Amino acid sequence: MSSPTPLLVVGSVALDSIRTPFGTRERSLGGAATHFSVAASFFTDVSVVAVVGEDFTAEDEAVFHERKINIDNLQRVSGGKTFRWVGEYGFDLNTARTLDTQLNVFADFKPALGEIAKKSPFLFLANIQPALQREVRNQVDARFVAMDTMNYWIEQTREDLLKTIAVVDALIINDAEAREIAGEPNLIRAARKILKLGPQMLVVKRGEYGAAFFTDDSYFATPAFPLEGVFDPTGAGDSFAGGFMGYLSQADKIDQTTLRRAVIYGSVMASFNVEEFSCDRLRRLKFEEIRDRFHRFKEFTHFEI
Amino acid sequence: MSSPTPLLVVGSVALDSIRTPFGTRERSLGGAATHFSVAASFFTDVSVVAVVGEDFTAEDEAVFHERKINIDNLQRVSGGKTFRWVGEYGFDLNTARTLDTQLNVFADFKPALGEIAKKSPFLFLANIQPALQREVRNQVDARFVAMDTMNYWIEQTREDLLKTIAVVDALIINDAEAREIAGEPNLIRAARKILKLGPQMLVVKRGEYGAAFFTDDSYFATPAFPLEGVFDPTGAGDSFAGGFMGYLSQADKIDQTTLRRAVIYGSVMASFNVEEFSCDRLRRLKFEEIRDRFHRFKEFTHFEI
Repeated sequence: MSSPTPLLVVGSVALDSIRTPFGTRERSLGGAATHFSVAASFFTDVSVVAVVGEDFTAEDEAVFHERKINIDNLQRVSGGKTFRWVGEYGFDLNTARTLDTQLNVFADFKPALGEIAKKSPFLFLANIQPALQREVRNQVDARFVAMDTMNYWIEQTREDLLKTIAVVDALIINDAEAREIAGEPNLIRAARKILKLGPQMLVVKRGEYGAAFFTDDSYFATPAFPLEGVFDPTGAGDSFAGGFMGYLSQADKIDQTTLRRAVIYGSVMASFNVEEFSCDRLRRLKFEEIRDRFHRFKEFTHFEI
Repeated sequence: MSSPTPLLVVGSVALDSIRTPFGTRERSLGGAATHFSVAASFFTDVSVVAVVGEDFTAEDEAVFHERKINIDNLQRVSGGKTFRWVGEYGFDLNTARTLDTQLNVFADFKPALGEIAKKSPFLFLANIQPALQREVRNQVDARFVAMDTMNYWIEQTREDLLKTIAVVDALIINDAEAREIAGEPNLIRAARKILKLGPQMLVVKRGEYGAAFFTDDSYFATPAFPLEGVFDPTGAGDSFAGGFMGYLSQADKIDQTTLRRAVIYGSVMASFNVEEFSCDRLRRLKFEEIRDRFHRFKEFTHFEI
């Protein structure tokens, strides 16, 4: 019997159509579980729980194989179509405008986990229906569970979402989502409220402004990597989560020192991800480049007392 | 003959009316030169070049005396009215909406500097007409000159503004202003463009997201101090500049280590300033509190390699 994969992610594998001021790409391999797993694969072995249709090609699958990502739990629906998202970004690149969403095979997705997957010590519940996230969470005997969500679930399925938040260790969301969950415009007060909902920790992604990390008795914050060439922000948050969870899983400990480094590795992976469409930049990334950018974070945030 | 004041500021002394979601204050002592000089006074001796009307009372003046701020160059216009600003903030507190501006005595302000003021080694040109800033800059034989500006001057007097930018060492502005001056939505590229206009360095204030510091060959960034109780953001940028310039003037050197510390001291002073209306919080601030918050910046931004 094989040993369990160190890191498991459940979430979407999608085919996106993306318009940015710098270009357009039809049928771009995307989805939260894709961006997450590709980023995490630089740190640890990762396994994806998701569903795709018949339009998911050998070429799409090759992206996972290249990065040695386990797709034993990737369901294929004959005659089905993969989840599709069509979105566009304006010049500031800060917010995506969704033009179309087709759930397709995701509409009836019932994650069925193999016995090995159920023993993964680290689990990430990417942005899907909160009830589905909880269903997966309850099947996995994980040591550390983190989750993402989005405004749609906060507004449409709030009670369900709160139940899921109550059974995870960490919430990894953006600042607008944190404010909306807490119903509180001040981020620091919003964080205090969210930590009362159950999780031990909260990671807030702030796009070009960096990230913040909260526990009941600690606070850490970092600016983002200074990028002159942001090309496509799609998947930035998921690759952040992938770097964060991938590094934690590799380090196999959950202390303040490790968590702070994980926030930086998350920021590093997001900074690469936005430099090109889809996973293009990460597909040709080398670990030396990640190490180099990690050290540059130290350099540009350091000051002497 | 007295020795020159280490730090000179030219800018507005104003009477503000401010509405925030947390309260309203009529006739609040404000203006860029006020917030700047009060913040800087914790680090160095500072002298204010400005103009007020007959409505500027002994009580207003006492604020400057308390902090031992030199007001020998504060002109008083008999029969005149002090500059007035009426503004309000929404719940996110990020942007002020100007309801009314009355230039009053500021409309005909001609800064006439005394011989001692002209020898100040550090000079800050707060947000006033670019032509007036340049007039002052040309009178002062300073070692280091920094300036602020605002969208109004960028839009209305662009050519004049560029002439002033060309003759200062540092620009201290917010991120929207940086993008607007450069005509470039990406902040990092905007910074590169601005540094080609003349200044050796650019400090970008990002409100609740912190601050960034650029030179041709270095980059430094810090998140903001995590505040649960932002009460009135008026003067945050000016108290930032006051902390930055005050610390530089006290240190009396302009190297990377000192400049990075100055960015943190600027952030510290802004974080106190926004906790209450006007200069109320700074008037009862102790230097120990500044040191403490400076050290907390180190603590919440530090990570181990």
